[in-house]
Amino acid sequence: MTVIDLNSDLGESFGPWKKGLDKEILKIVSSANVACGFHAGDPLQMKKTCLSCIQNDVGIGAHPGFRDLVGFGRREIQGYDIEELKSEAIYQIGALQAIAKTLNTEVRHVKFHGALGNMSSRDIELAKPLYDAVMELSTDLKILVIAGTKQQMAAEELGIPHVREIFADRSYNNDGTLVSRAKKGAMILDPLQCADNMLNAVQNNRLTSIDGNEIPIKPESICVHGDSPAAVKIATQIKRTLEETGIGIRKF
Amino acid sequence: MTVIDLNSDLGESFGPWKKGLDKEILKIVSSANVACGFHAGDPLQMKKTCLSCIQNDVGIGAHPGFRDLVGFGRREIQGYDIEELKSEAIYQIGALQAIAKTLNTEVRHVKFHGALGNMSSRDIELAKPLYDAVMELSTDLKILVIAGTKQQMAAEELGIPHVREIFADRSYNNDGTLVSRAKKGAMILDPLQCADNMLNAVQNNRLTSIDGNEIPIKPESICVHGDSPAAVKIATQIKRTLEETGIGIRKF
Amino acid sequence: MTVIDLNSDLGESFGPWKKGLDKEILKIVSSANVACGFHAGDPLQMKKTCLSCIQNDVGIGAHPGFRDLVGFGRREIQGYDIEELKSEAIYQIGALQAIAKTLNTEVRHVKFHGALGNMSSRDIELAKPLYDAVMELSTDLKILVIAGTKQQMAAEELGIPHVREIFADRSYNNDGTLVSRAKKGAMILDPLQCADNMLNAVQNNRLTSIDGNEIPIKPESICVHGDSPAAVKIATQIKRTLEETGIGIRKF
Amino acid sequence: MTVIDLNSDLGESFGPWKKGLDKEILKIVSSANVACGFHAGDPLQMKKTCLSCIQNDVGIGAHPGFRDLVGFGRREIQGYDIEELKSEAIYQIGALQAIAKTLNTEVRHVKFHGALGNMSSRDIELAKPLYDAVMELSTDLKILVIAGTKQQMAAEELGIPHVREIFADRSYNNDGTLVSRAKKGAMILDPLQCADNMLNAVQNNRLTSIDGNEIPIKPESICVHGDSPAAVKIATQIKRTLEETGIGIRKF
Repeated sequence: MTVIDLNSDLGESFGPWKKGLDKEILKIVSSANVACGFHAGDPLQMKKTCLSCIQNDVGIGAHPGFRDLVGFGRREIQGYDIEELKSEAIYQIGALQAIAKTLNTEVRHVKFHGALGNMSSRDIELAKPLYDAVMELSTDLKILVIAGTKQQMAAEELGIPHVREIFADRSYNNDGTLVSRAKKGAMILDPLQCADNMLNAVQNNRLTSIDGNEIPIKPESICVHGDSPAAVKIATQIKRTLEETGIGIRKF
Repeated sequence: MTVIDLNSDLGESFGPWKKGLDKEILKIVSSANVACGFHAGDPLQMKKTCLSCIQNDVGIGAHPGFRDLVGFGRREIQGYDIEELKSEAIYQIGALQAIAKTLNTEVRHVKFHGALGNMSSRDIELAKPLYDAVMELSTDLKILVIAGTKQQMAAEELGIPHVREIFADRSYNNDGTLVSRAKKGAMILDPLQCADNMLNAVQNNRLTSIDGNEIPIKPESICVHGDSPAAVKIATQIKRTLEETGIGIRKF
Repeated sequence: MTVIDLNSDLGESFGPWKKGLDKEILKIVSSANVACGFHAGDPLQMKKTCLSCIQNDVGIGAHPGFRDLVGFGRREIQGYDIEELKSEAIYQIGALQAIAKTLNTEVRHVKFHGALGNMSSRDIELAKPLYDAVMELSTDLKILVIAGTKQQMAAEELGIPHVREIFADRSYNNDGTLVSRAKKGAMILDPLQCADNMLNAVQNNRLTSIDGNEIPIKPESICVHGDSPAAVKIATQIKRTLEETGIGIRKF
Repeated sequence: MTVIDLNSDLGESFGPWKKGLDKEILKIVSSANVACGFHAGDPLQMKKTCLSCIQNDVGIGAHPGFRDLVGFGRREIQGYDIEELKSEAIYQIGALQAIAKTLNTEVRHVKFHGALGNMSSRDIELAKPLYDAVMELSTDLKILVIAGTKQQMAAEELGIPHVREIFADRSYNNDGTLVSRAKKGAMILDPLQCADNMLNAVQNNRLTSIDGNEIPIKPESICVHGDSPAAVKIATQIKRTLEETGIGIRKF
């Protein structure tokens, strides 16, 4: 049977502030990227999210981001000392590993969040040291890379375990890169269109670009969102379409 | 040969701010309590401190504290949800464990910092869940407990690995508790007096109280400070006096 | 015409996290206690909240709290240097004053938040220096005090401008103090009962205690909440009941 | 008599961490740029620094920076919402204004710190809205601009009160811009050379570039540093040389 992983960002509440429809999305996805306290999440929230992942048989991943709570890790910070950035990533991943360990489970993967994800998908010289740092921590960790970007290239060049992800609700350019959010049509809002695209990608390893061309793609995981009822609707439709076609949702 | 551990709080710099004479004190002690980012320390500082510990053959311990950077973790915070506090402790310890692991070393012990240490030394109902949490993370971790307090009692009742510490520069009451810092004579400033007291404690398992009585004590570690030249002088004298008497400084 | 002020805590969102039904509650109240960034709120949120207050003709007040974002300022922090606490209060109030000034309006009152409010309502030695600090900043600021507590006593002893507030949804003991939240019946959930109580307090200066006794009270402001639809329902009912009886809702 | 202002960054300690030789530098300069809590400084530190400024008859200025404590505001953060950035600046300046007001003094100027200063000196579209925001707060505030940069251009185009500053210990290119710190010779380490350069700038409105050319400059303030004994030595020499030549050190 063909299988594919569905992943989503979770545990993004902080202290008294709630965020995301975690309960709903945990019933859909097979892997969770858990916020680790620097851009969102707090230690108790991390524990609760790990517990929910266990209950829903969802794989736990660390989602380290920039130390920018008020900006939710979405602002690009220039001029970081690379050793500092590596240490901040390891700090966050290790914190989640420890929390998972107290629950007799473990962190399976790492996905870099927000601006840190964007910057490392453009710049292989940023992606490589970050991935090296993860491997120094544990070679059992898989890195979730954005397919077709410098992230994938970095993981391949380093020869380290990685999983290629595509985005369910984003349009692609002809060269396989994402259409910038600043452009019209960057986001796909129709659940059925998202689902059809993902089915095509999983079944045929092809994706229709924003210009209507078919581009090659080999996804191992599909990123869906849970930050709005509309997003959950898209995720639900993707799961339904895939399963009706006989494709299983399985953690990588 | 009789041996004893010397421990000190280290890695308390933060970002651009330096604190503590780590370089000097690392030549004296055998165990380091490394700040984990909540009351002091940052990820890169933690890495640097672990590296220095390796170079000086000093045992690495985690030093979790309250989430209170501006107050240096020295203010007692009431009304914490105990689950939140446990998660914050595990978060901090795990972060340091991961950083240590990337350097091929490991965290050997845990010592609670500042107000969290004080509160748990008075309240066994606070000490026990915190220690339980540490054991859930790893039974290989030893807990540094303040001798004669509820911390020691908690560790004994739980039957978990612990190390009893005494303070080199603090006066003791007749019942074995520390003289409050608010009282005159709470701090011992004379290096030779500190050293003699510690020698008596290690050799004879006795300590002279502030009233001049001999009280029983069985230390396994002596806490010294490195936050001022005067503190380093005291630590230096203790090491010298102990070694001249044939007592070895060894990590527990 | 008899008039009374209604006040509520607002602007408690932070960065990407939303909190509170500000839009709804701003149509009901006459005074807003605006979070100033230490326990909730951020500079842009403060500006947006001030703008909304202007649009709804709601008086702007500063709501300084402990520096404890993850705990929402609800945890009591012991051992603060009083000079530090005073400076933190002035810092927060001044930040809001400046934001209000850029919008050609001004901060009219100060209400201490959460644990800082609770502690200063029990301890006149805490309330007095805080209020002194506010007066050092500006004698035009009015202080919202919890009626019948050490806060009121402090303001009276200092002879400074203050406004006595009562809580719409809290039960009172016979001595005029609030029933502890830990006790059954501490919260009043029925909107009509809340409204009747408040009407009695405003019209007759009397409040029915949890034991059924009538206790004297002279409110100048009623505190309502906007953190849930149920809370907004209570606030709506109070406004309706008061206005139907010919009592006007006016900022003090 | 010819007069010139000397300014320096002060109040950069945070909580338990000390930074800068404030006591020494306050005897030399006539204006202080006081850290406002986002990149350094805390409310009590701000109060203490204002008090020291009063005692030394030094003019108080706000020094707002990016919200990046661990990075000391020195990392460029991209993707800020400009309204958020303006609000953060006003928040910081207002906090200092309030603290100054409780001490019966006032904030006289504003200087943007670190990465925020660098970015606004390159980008007039960033400098202008920031300066507009300051003017919305108070037209009595003077803005300290780096001479010859987009900061100066922004202030001139907006027609707002500003003071042109030059750096005592930095080399200049032929076009009047600063030699990048990445290049050799960017920093001038010799106190006498610094002093001679500043004397030339103040007396003759000329500065010798790194290539030995004389370039025109009209400074109203000289920025000196107090973060090391060497920096204080330079500042001391500048003051001495200027005063011996009959030039007075006066706040603008």
